[in-house]
Amino acid sequence: MTAQPVVEFRLAMTLPRADAAVRAALQEQGFGILTEIDIAATLRQKLGVETKPHRLLGACNPRLAQASLEADPNVGAFLPCGIALREGATAAETLVTVQNPELIADAFSAPALKAIGSEALARLMDAIEGLGAEAVGTGERSPL
Amino acid sequence: MTAQPVVEFRLAMTLPRADAAVRAALQEQGFGILTEIDIAATLRQKLGVETKPHRLLGACNPRLAQASLEADPNVGAFLPCGIALREGATAAETLVTVQNPELIADAFSAPALKAIGSEALARLMDAIEGLGAEAVGTGERSPL
Repeated sequence: MTAQPVVEFRLAMTLPRADAAVRAALQEQGFGILTEIDIAATLRQKLGVETKPHRLLGACNPRLAQASLEADPNVGAFLPCGIALREGATAAETLVTVQNPELIADAFSAPALKAIGSEALARLMDAIEGLGAEAVGTGERSPL
Repeated sequence: MTAQPVVEFRLAMTLPRADAAVRAALQEQGFGILTEIDIAATLRQKLGVETKPHRLLGACNPRLAQASLEADPNVGAFLPCGIALREGATAAETLVTVQNPELIADAFSAPALKAIGSEALARLMDAIEGLGAEAVGTGERSPL
């Protein structure tokens, strides 16, 4: 069975508030934010396209990153773990999409990645759920 | 069939030269580098662990990013596309690992992602192969 690509949550907060809250919650789970992209601004500048506010964060737990790179150094192409925040139906809600580390772990052959991916996913979900987020989807591929 | 997680290349260049060459080649394929992490420095600072030089780049082709977000906004959790550069057997060679956008496309249900993922992979491979890189692996899961 292929793992779902993402876990998606809805937070009853504006995007700037959600950004700050998500960062603080991830920090408690050992994840620092190493990168941030304002993808809405990038698309506006490069393509002249207007989209809703949308930010892409790159989260890294150094201990888990180090363990995963020891298991297979090619995992670096999937680090840091992507977390996307975008405005929901109104500016009062934010959709948080977390990349599923189990999908990545499953795609590589190193058996040690399985437990690392599971721990990473559990910590990311604990962080977001601890903010009172409502789970809204998994992006899972529908059965054919 | 599950797509291979990465494509790995060996370049006969030092890491700083490979970094500059990869950026220029990606630019010709419409990819800008939006993020850069010195993961070796991060692991040294956070864990006191010494590793070989290792950088993580985040590459984004705005047209393909916009098309993929239109197909499924949750794809944002996998943007930008990760490209890892690490020192090889000697400092005179660099291993370049490219995240496979087809793996991501396959994991989501939106059919439009298939062609976008294939174009992204083809452009990334053309860029790296154009530098005279030798393909060395795919990180593919061994058959059980």
